[in-house]
Amino acid sequence: MSDSWFDRHRERLDSAVAAIASREFYSAFDESPSPRVYGEEAAPAGRAAFDAWLDGDFPLTAAGAEGTVATERSPYGFELGVRYPHVTDPDALLAAAAAGMRPWRDAGPDGRTAVCLEILDRLHARIFELANAVQHTSGQAFVMAFQAGGAHALDRALEAIAYAWVEMTRTPRTALWEKPGRGEPLRMEKTFTIVPRGVALVIGCNTFPTWNSWPGLFASLVTGNAVVVKPHPSAVLPLAITVQVCQEVLAEAGFDPRLVVLAAEERGQKLAATLARRAEVRIIDYTGGNAFGEWLEDQAHQAVVFTEKAGVNTVVIDSTSDFAGMCQNLAFSFSLYSGQMCTAPQNVFVPAGGIETDAGHKSVDEIAAGIGAALDRLLGDDARAVELLGGIVNTDIPARVERAAGRGRVLVPSREVRHPAYADATVRTPLLVGLTADDADTYTSECFGPVAYLIETADTIESLALFDHTVARHGAMTASVYSTSEEVVDDMREAALEVGVALSENLTGGVFVNQSAAFSDFHGTGANPAANASYTDGAYVASRFRVVQSRRHV
Amino acid sequence: MSDSWFDRHRERLDSAVAAIASREFYSAFDESPSPRVYGEEAAPAGRAAFDAWLDGDFPLTAAGAEGTVATERSPYGFELGVRYPHVTDPDALLAAAAAGMRPWRDAGPDGRTAVCLEILDRLHARIFELANAVQHTSGQAFVMAFQAGGAHALDRALEAIAYAWVEMTRTPRTALWEKPGRGEPLRMEKTFTIVPRGVALVIGCNTFPTWNSWPGLFASLVTGNAVVVKPHPSAVLPLAITVQVCQEVLAEAGFDPRLVVLAAEERGQKLAATLARRAEVRIIDYTGGNAFGEWLEDQAHQAVVFTEKAGVNTVVIDSTSDFAGMCQNLAFSFSLYSGQMCTAPQNVFVPAGGIETDAGHKSVDEIAAGIGAALDRLLGDDARAVELLGGIVNTDIPARVERAAGRGRVLVPSREVRHPAYADATVRTPLLVGLTADDADTYTSECFGPVAYLIETADTIESLALFDHTVARHGAMTASVYSTSEEVVDDMREAALEVGVALSENLTGGVFVNQSAAFSDFHGTGANPAANASYTDGAYVASRFRVVQSRRHV
Repeated sequence: MSDSWFDRHRERLDSAVAAIASREFYSAFDESPSPRVYGEEAAPAGRAAFDAWLDGDFPLTAAGAEGTVATERSPYGFELGVRYPHVTDPDALLAAAAAGMRPWRDAGPDGRTAVCLEILDRLHARIFELANAVQHTSGQAFVMAFQAGGAHALDRALEAIAYAWVEMTRTPRTALWEKPGRGEPLRMEKTFTIVPRGVALVIGCNTFPTWNSWPGLFASLVTGNAVVVKPHPSAVLPLAITVQVCQEVLAEAGFDPRLVVLAAEERGQKLAATLARRAEVRIIDYTGGNAFGEWLEDQAHQAVVFTEKAGVNTVVIDSTSDFAGMCQNLAFSFSLYSGQMCTAPQNVFVPAGGIETDAGHKSVDEIAAGIGAALDRLLGDDARAVELLGGIVNTDIPARVERAAGRGRVLVPSREVRHPAYADATVRTPLLVGLTADDADTYTSECFGPVAYLIETADTIESLALFDHTVARHGAMTASVYSTSEEVVDDMREAALEVGVALSENLTGGVFVNQSAAFSDFHGTGANPAANASYTDGAYVASRFRVVQSRRHV
Repeated sequence: MSDSWFDRHRERLDSAVAAIASREFYSAFDESPSPRVYGEEAAPAGRAAFDAWLDGDFPLTAAGAEGTVATERSPYGFELGVRYPHVTDPDALLAAAAAGMRPWRDAGPDGRTAVCLEILDRLHARIFELANAVQHTSGQAFVMAFQAGGAHALDRALEAIAYAWVEMTRTPRTALWEKPGRGEPLRMEKTFTIVPRGVALVIGCNTFPTWNSWPGLFASLVTGNAVVVKPHPSAVLPLAITVQVCQEVLAEAGFDPRLVVLAAEERGQKLAATLARRAEVRIIDYTGGNAFGEWLEDQAHQAVVFTEKAGVNTVVIDSTSDFAGMCQNLAFSFSLYSGQMCTAPQNVFVPAGGIETDAGHKSVDEIAAGIGAALDRLLGDDARAVELLGGIVNTDIPARVERAAGRGRVLVPSREVRHPAYADATVRTPLLVGLTADDADTYTSECFGPVAYLIETADTIESLALFDHTVARHGAMTASVYSTSEEVVDDMREAALEVGVALSENLTGGVFVNQSAAFSDFHGTGANPAANASYTDGAYVASRFRVVQSRRHV
């Protein structure tokens, strides 16, 4: 079975491997939810499949589970009511996950890669269902849920599989070693086997349940490990569907389906912390807040820990040759999914004296007005606005936006938007607050949600110094610069290298700082406090397995 | 400078890269100290160079140093008396090391690789001097010091450099990304830069000061990091020479020579522990005892920690078609450097009822006698014996050997050997002690030195179970099996995969379980408690650097 799957998916694997080496554009899964691409039936069928899960028992059996939990409420204002097996016995859960590891190891790199690529195909076949599940757990608008939570997440998963396959196959399965000597050479036959580390734990987040979980899940699975998927209690369904597909394909290929298991919990059960310290758990992938991420890095010594936490994403504005394009680009980045992205810009440093632009000198207030006008164009119509903003993912955020408004000068107020289809959805436009360089207490921590700060500095030199200082200390997933001066761009590049953050320069068109393209852009660097890992580089896959050799004379 | 060095060493790099992919035989540095290879003058010149260091000030200046330390005594019975700058101020030391990192980063993968390969060439030119330094710090016999401490260490260093170069260059320096769209494609130019993690700390050991330090040193240096080399107080000189050569080549190429610094300390100063917790230190390579290795793994959260500790290396004897060859091979492995190798076999499990061999059935006592006779042949002549045994590296070991003799039945006693050239050297032949499966208190910990246990089990099934159990818990660097049964060998292979240890099968000739060949054999697996890393795999290099990108429209 897995032989024929390997052949079937070989071209896709080869293309992915070529793309990660060239970093040129590649995508294996079409990001357009258009009927022209996916057919007329796909969207309604996906919605119906999603609806069918609501208020029912999700058909997964889990070792170590007793009873069920239902913890999800759509940010669009309704209870999902899906019931999942409630994991209460980590011993039984981990034992079941580990039980099938030997045949999975023996399947070898190609065999496991075939199974994982087949899983991606089956997930792709359910992309509309997944998009609905992502929309109604994360609050992303549908098209974004389809793209980020579906097509792009599949691309990131494929990227992780491709990296892992390259890494596993760089050592041959066997080798003949002949050492010349005085008489007969010494001859040894050697066998090299890829062995897993153990059980891997994937700790999902609320905002990107698939995009942020799939790279670690597939990197661990394809390298031979069993995977326990611990979803965020508010975003279980996308990962339940994922586990269901993994189990279906594993079983079809003759492997123990429990190699991938769902560990659903009650809110507040702290199942992730319990599992993370278990001796059996040798790999942890985590996306979420800094406190628990740092706890994992410090406490889970028995495991290799990959974290993506949060930072203070920064924009340095020095000057621009396209003022309108800059304002439009920033407004879009602030608005996309209401800034509820680990990559959304927050701190915008700008000289207090204003900047030179193609539209003449612009004061700080004029820049704010330019961004405000761009926000109005993007978000002025409620029906269009909700397609960009999505819903506010949790109830803490509106109060946080209000508090942020009190911390400085409100340059662009946040507005409540009425969702035309979901009356109970909470939707807010971005708030832009004016600060000064002295307001470090405010801008040195992440204010998760639709909040950005326009921070006045003495000049671009101070902007760069503050960028350097805040990101080195507090981390960042992204950084961005606007300048017509090659020297300033060079200085920003150098600062970005120093503090270890990816930089986007003068984005004024259809590419946004919060978006990264699989196979070409690295997401996170692992070089600053916001994340200790990157999607995807060699370091993300190389330590998920080990090579064990045996040798004998021939 | 580094351009021409890259060209000069390109063929060697390419050969090494090809060898790590094929795992076929390759060596770049001749292991024979013969005058036919290195010329008549090389050996006496190397000895003279070594002698010239004795009782003098080693000419290194170190930031953060005050006064000097002289802590080395040759296991062959004389004080080295070499004085090194005594590091007392970690702040100054680390600041100096980090000062030159930016130009070193900007040299790029090829530039840094060229410098590192040139360093290897210069170290090779001093191989006889290094061999003397290794001999008179570790106690290894001269030829072993030349091979393991010189040629093989150079090969292992080259291997680490080759792995790192492959890993750094798999991402291109620049890429053009074109995403097709409805109108014009989106076009971005992207730049990818390899950035270092920070300052790397290499903590050397007494027994293999070069072989165990160079892979980490060069893996960190070539990936752009500064390296602080903290030698064992009893084995400073080989690493002082190493640092001297690194600084000479770095300076010649226009880089800050303090990118590699020596951190010599007083015995008991605990400088490694102080440095290991510093925020600037982002990579640690350690070889040594389990207690400090585990402390590093648990406590140095700010760093990536690579450890090679110790375990209980195990031999399972089931049967053999070459009894004499088996006894000879085991006797050699026990004798080489008096068993003072992390790879030397210690626990030999054998069925109490004896084994079938080509020379008929052999009881446990007959096996012991066979090994004893082989030891006599190898070590009967003192002058030849010392060339295999070398000297006992520290004063704890003779007492440990005596205690071990009291823990079971002495099958082959340890004998004191008089070194014909060094009257004050301590030289001991291996002790073989008979135990039973019940003596787990004795055989589940490493007895470092010339001690091996012949452990009677009910049968090979119990031997395999004990192998599995002890290695899973206590780790091992090596494992070995003797059996004429394909089924037993298969079971042992499976057990070795399960517990994650490299296996040698039926070694009866000129390959020994304690020896691994660079470019072909992995040293350590990282998959059991004896080590969390392997020389060398992708995981050993991939996390020593990060990729930071910038992107812009074109």
